[in-house]
This record gives sequence, structure tokens and C-alpha cells, in this order.
Amino acid sequence: MSKILAYGVREDEQSAMQRWASQHPEVQVDTTDVLLTPENATLAQGYDVVNILQAGIPVGESTLGQLDQMGIHTLTLRNVGTDDLDFDVLKKYQFNVSNVPRYSPNAIAEHAMIQMARLFRHFKQMDLKVYRHNLKWAPTIGREVRKQTIGIIGTGNIGRVAIQIAQGFGAKVIAYDKYRNAEIEAQGLYVDSLDELYAQADGISLHVPGLPENHHMIDAKAIAKMKDQVVIVNAGRGNLVDTDAIIAGLDAGKIDGFGMDTYEDEGGLFNVDWEGKDFPDTRVADLITRDNVIVSPHTAFYTWTATEEMVEQSLDAGLAFITGNTPEQAINY
Amino acid sequence: MSKILAYGVREDEQSAMQRWASQHPEVQVDTTDVLLTPENATLAQGYDVVNILQAGIPVGESTLGQLDQMGIHTLTLRNVGTDDLDFDVLKKYQFNVSNVPRYSPNAIAEHAMIQMARLFRHFKQMDLKVYRHNLKWAPTIGREVRKQTIGIIGTGNIGRVAIQIAQGFGAKVIAYDKYRNAEIEAQGLYVDSLDELYAQADGISLHVPGLPENHHMIDAKAIAKMKDQVVIVNAGRGNLVDTDAIIAGLDAGKIDGFGMDTYEDEGGLFNVDWEGKDFPDTRVADLITRDNVIVSPHTAFYTWTATEEMVEQSLDAGLAFITGNTPEQAINY
Ligand SMILES: NC(=O)c1ccc[n+]([C@@H]2O[C@H](COP(=O)([O-])OP(=O)(O)OC[C@H]3O[C@@H](n4cnc5c(N)ncnc54)[C@H](O)[C@@H]3O)[C@@H](O)[C@H]2O)c1
Ligand SMILES: NC(=O)c1ccc[n+]([C@@H]2O[C@H](COP(=O)([O-])OP(=O)(O)OC[C@H]3O[C@@H](n4cnc5c(N)ncnc54)[C@H](O)[C@@H]3O)[C@@H](O)[C@H]2O)c1
Repeated sequence: MSKILAYGVREDEQSAMQRWASQHPEVQVDTTDVLLTPENATLAQGYDVVNILQAGIPVGESTLGQLDQMGIHTLTLRNVGTDDLDFDVLKKYQFNVSNVPRYSPNAIAEHAMIQMARLFRHFKQMDLKVYRHNLKWAPTIGREVRKQTIGIIGTGNIGRVAIQIAQGFGAKVIAYDKYRNAEIEAQGLYVDSLDELYAQADGISLHVPGLPENHHMIDAKAIAKMKDQVVIVNAGRGNLVDTDAIIAGLDAGKIDGFGMDTYEDEGGLFNVDWEGKDFPDTRVADLITRDNVIVSPHTAFYTWTATEEMVEQSLDAGLAFITGNTPEQAINY
Repeated sequence: MSKILAYGVREDEQSAMQRWASQHPEVQVDTTDVLLTPENATLAQGYDVVNILQAGIPVGESTLGQLDQMGIHTLTLRNVGTDDLDFDVLKKYQFNVSNVPRYSPNAIAEHAMIQMARLFRHFKQMDLKVYRHNLKWAPTIGREVRKQTIGIIGTGNIGRVAIQIAQGFGAKVIAYDKYRNAEIEAQGLYVDSLDELYAQADGISLHVPGLPENHHMIDAKAIAKMKDQVVIVNAGRGNLVDTDAIIAGLDAGKIDGFGMDTYEDEGGLFNVDWEGKDFPDTRVADLITRDNVIVSPHTAFYTWTATEEMVEQSLDAGLAFITGNTPEQAINY
């Protein structure tokens, strides 16, 4: 019987792991909450596939060399990011590698649109007032989502779901993408340039990848072209946004709200509990306290559905490799 | 020239007041931020219409008697609630009275659906963690809105907009109303009883009026019929919900989230700044601190659009009375 060992399994992944295992009696799936490190590599002795979740721990010679010696040459990721992996070493030992580039787009699209709606309605201001026992309405008046023009940058899997949600609110949606989607085109939602989108949108949500060409797409120049009181949400990638330019725009009152799920310097900062410790990023510490900024630590994806899909796809990929097939999640490196 | 005096005008009402006035040069509209009290009634000397916003201050003999003596017999409200008014005295002096029973349903529907979405996604938990500098994802995993069955009780103006928003998220919507709406019926959304709705809904939003027959519609018996982990939002009327039963349901882990915009004992509590003072309601003080409860002080209505519509309709009604007509907002008492 083939055996898969999944490292770093969170509590919330267990049910999906167990369900998949029960549906695939031909494979033995074991899980551990420890992470794949050089010290823990020996746990994989006797397994065919090592399954991991990106954890900010380099996976290089000291780990992969051990796996190679144990005869393990399949590494499947439960997430999309591959920053931890040393592909030169993976190549040297001829590893099969897969990730999960595509899963529940609704997880992220919902997050982006809920945060945008909250920012339009000034709900964080009200939440904080209520917390301080100030139950006075004024001056915390909101803008109705339906009255806004919402600009979606990037109409891929996630952007298109964001459009549906915004339309459900009755908002006017405009969109921009370098490669147009036929459905969105048929709806007549595209504008011809980012400048046009900036000029018209009351709210802007980013759903393009963090490619070098998109680095700091939202900078001081872009913000200057936007409408006063613009609301910006970034649940795309941190490097899409020049954080200093956003802060300047907030300080100047140009930006009325900012939702930040991804941050250009999030590595080592997000998914860590800093409570009672020195918080290492003064910029983020400042943003967190602002009543018109909502910070979340790259959790837009963090739903039961997305987690299930990530677990299942990573195990499917492992099984495909075991049976000599190439799964669609295989990384061609 | 006819003259209207508007009492208790908030900052955010001024622009709508001024716009209406500029569109109606035949009427003089003056505003004051002071409230209509027996002491301030004399300010209305020389005016034809007194325009007010419910403020928890009784409007009875001591005020209306003065208005009568000044020859003023028209009182227009900028809101729906008429609890402040002594209709016997109004009748004695033969006042024309109007309110604004219907305005932007989106204001309230958006609020209810945004709060429900936040509760499904466990965003308040994450907000509070981020505030404490805990940026760890787990265990704050959320449920995707699209995977939920959302039960809308009351498919009037507001409930129907809530349905559209929920559908935009891709959620399954079910609905209950004593008097069915043809459009919602055509969509096949109705269930036959509240019990059926309770049995199926992951989230329940209340959009029925606070009539005596609906008092404590959501009590311990109703909650017992609901699914485990149900999310409940009340942006309808406070008396629809037995708050103690909700708290028991939260404590038992039966209710996963509660959004409370209206509260059965909100009179004298909401729209007051208690910061630094003794907070008079321990139940609400407790609810505010819970990480799966979102309290807002009856602010679902509080948007620019709703405010404009309330101001405009109240002034329209005043003008109608001035010209001897009966506005649709007239109260037949
Ligand atoms: N916050 C989170 O938890 C989270 C989770 C998953 C993905 N994401 C991010 O969301 C992004 C979008 O994901 P997706 O699945 O929709 O991707 P996708 O590939 O389906 O869509 C991306 C779209 O962006 C367009 N695009 C690329 N560069 C552009 C540019 N400069 N201008 C205009 N359009 C451009 C592409 O043509 C494509 O249509 C991902 O790249 C990822 O970075 C975030
Ligand atoms: N939170 C806020 O700021 C705010 C603001 C405005 C209105 N509201 C509340 O929202 C409620 C709904 O407003 P609307 O404009 O949609 O009213 P509406 O009259 O258009 O609709 C109410 C619906 O409830 C139905 N109904 C009444 N009793 C029922 C019962 N026992 N079971 C099932 N259905 C029942 C009616 O048939 C009607 O379709 C209002 O009654 C008001 O209390 C709240």
C-alpha cells in the first residue's frame, strides 16, 4: 500500500484529510503537526509522498538529501506559494513537485468585497465606538454600496466572483484586465485603461498576480488619479501596493478606507502571534490602529471550503504521482 | 413666502436640506441643531411648518400648545418612529402630521448582509486578534457565504434587497413571509413555515415589523429548532428577539454569531455616548465584548442616501401640507 505523510497539518485540515483517506482505501495517509525540517525529515521513512504546507522554512539540501536517501522523490504542497523550495536541489534529486494554484476563488472574493463594503459603510469606526461605549450615530454615516462604482482590476477567477458579489449589492461595476474575459466583455464592464478605472471608481479591488510588472501598481501617481474618498482593498499580493503611498493618501484624506489582506513585507510577520512581544513592523502597527483601515494577515483564503480543496488537491496530486501519472497541479520546473 | 423650521438637524443632514431648499425657492427652510422642547418651541414663531427628528423627547401639551398659539399646525417627522408624539394633543389642536415610513431599503439590507457575512467568516474574531497583534490564522477559519443557506424572514422592501445581496454571494436563499411576494414566489424561495426555515437555514435575518404578534419571535423554542452553529442578525426591531435566549444560545455554542442592530431595551441606551460613564445595560455591555457578536446602535439606516431621502420626504410632506394637499407620508390618526 502506498503511503503519504502530511507534515504541519492544522486542526482544521484534519477532517478533509480523513475524508480523502476514507475515499481512497488504497492509500495510507498519516498526518503530523510538526513541520518538515532537516530534523523531522526522518519521520518520512517508509513513505512514498511527502505533503507539506508552506511554512517559511527552507526546503533544501539538508532536507531533500535525506528524503532522497529514503527513496522519497515526491513532494506535494497544499498551497500555491513555492518560496520555501530550492528547485535546484529538487531537480538534482529528480523530485516530482506539485502545488495548488487554484482553489475556491470565493474565499478571496468574498473577503475583498465584505471588507470593501465595511469600509464604505464606516463599520470599523462604528465598531470601535461601540467598543468604547460610544453609541452615538453621528458622525459615523456610511455610503451605500449600491451607490458606488466598484473597479475590479484583474478579471480572473477571483475578480469575476468579486464582480458578482458587487453586482448583488446593486453597485455599478467597472473592470480592467490586460486579457479580457468574454463574459465580462459581454456585460460591457471593461474600461480601456487603468487611468479610466481610477477616474471613475469609488472603490478599487486588486485581483492581479504579483508579477514584477505589477509591482507597486498602486503608487502615489496612481492614487493621485483616483477619486477623492476612494476605498482600496488589496487581497491580491502585497507587492501590488506601495504601502507608503497608501499611508500618505490616508493621511491626506484622499483615501477613505484601505483593506489590507496582503502586505509587501508580510514574510515573517503574518501568521505569527506577536501578542505580548515586540511587534517588528511599525507601519503595520500604525495601520492596525487606524479606524478606516482593516488589516488581516493574508487570511482571505482561510475558509473551510478552500482548506478542503487545498488538502484534496494535494492528496490527489500525490496519488497521481504514485500511479505514474502527472497531475494537473504538477509544477513544471 | 412659506417657512419651514427644522429642529435637531445633524451635520450630515445639512447638504440634503440645502439642496431641497435650492430646488424649492418658494419655501424658506431654516435649520437649527437644537431639539424641539417646550423651551425651544418659541424659535418657531413666524414659521408654517415644524420639522423634527425623533429624539426621545415627548412632544405634548407644553410644546404643542405653544405651537398652536403661534398658529402652527403642521408637524413633519424626518423618521418613521412616532413614539415621542402625544396624538391626543395633536388631535386637540388639529395638527397635520407626517413621518417617513419608507426610505432606502438598501441601507438596512446591506447592513444585515454585511454583518451576517462577517459572522460566517469569523471576521470579528480576526479583527480582535489583529488588534492584539496576534496575526496567526488558526483557528480563525471561516465559512464561505456561498456555501450557506440564508433564511430571510419578511420579504418586504428590505428583505427583498437582502435576498439579492445574499444571492450575489452565491448563497442559497430561503424565505418566509405571511403575505408572499410574487417575485420571490416565482423564484421558488418560500418555505411554508418558520419551523421549516429554522430547520434549513445556516443564517437567519429578520425583516418583519415589531408588531405585538411578532414579539420574541426568536425565543428559546425557536432557537432550539435551528441548526447548530446558526448565525442570527436582527436589523429589524429589538422586540423580535428574546435577548436572554440569544445569550443562552451563544453560551451553549448553539449560536455561532449574532448581529444586533436593534435591541429590545434600546430606548435611552442607543444614540448616546456612554464613554467614560456608567454603562447602564450589563447585557449589552457583555454582548459588545463577545468576539462572535456585533452590536451596532440602530445604525443600519444611517447612510447618506437614507438620510437624504428622509430629509427630502419630510420637506416634501411639509410643502404638500402648506399647499393644502395631503402627502403620502401623512399620518392618518
Ligand atoms: N489573499 C489571499 O489569500 C489570496 C489567495 C489566493 C490568491 N490571491 C491572489 O489573487 C490573485 C488573482 O487570483 P486569480 O485566481 O483570480 O488569478 P487569475 O490568473 O485567474 O487572474 C488574474 C488576472 O489578472 C490579469 N492581469 C495580470 N496582470 C495584469 C495587469 N497588469 N493589469 C490587468 N490585468 C492583469 C490576468 O490577465 C488575469 O485575468 C492571485 O494572483 C493571487 O496573488 C490571494
Ligand atoms: N435597523 C434599522 O435601522 C431599520 C430601519 C428601517 C426599518 N427597520 C425594520 O425593518 C422592518 C422591515 O421593513 P420593510 O420596509 O421591509 O417593511 P415591509 O412592510 O415592506 O415588509 C415587512 C414584511 O414582513 C411581513 N411580516 C409581518 N409579520 C410577519 C410574520 N409574523 N411572519 C412573516 N412575515 C411577516 C409582511 O408581510 C411584510 O412582507 C421594519 O418593520 C422595521 O422594523 C429597521
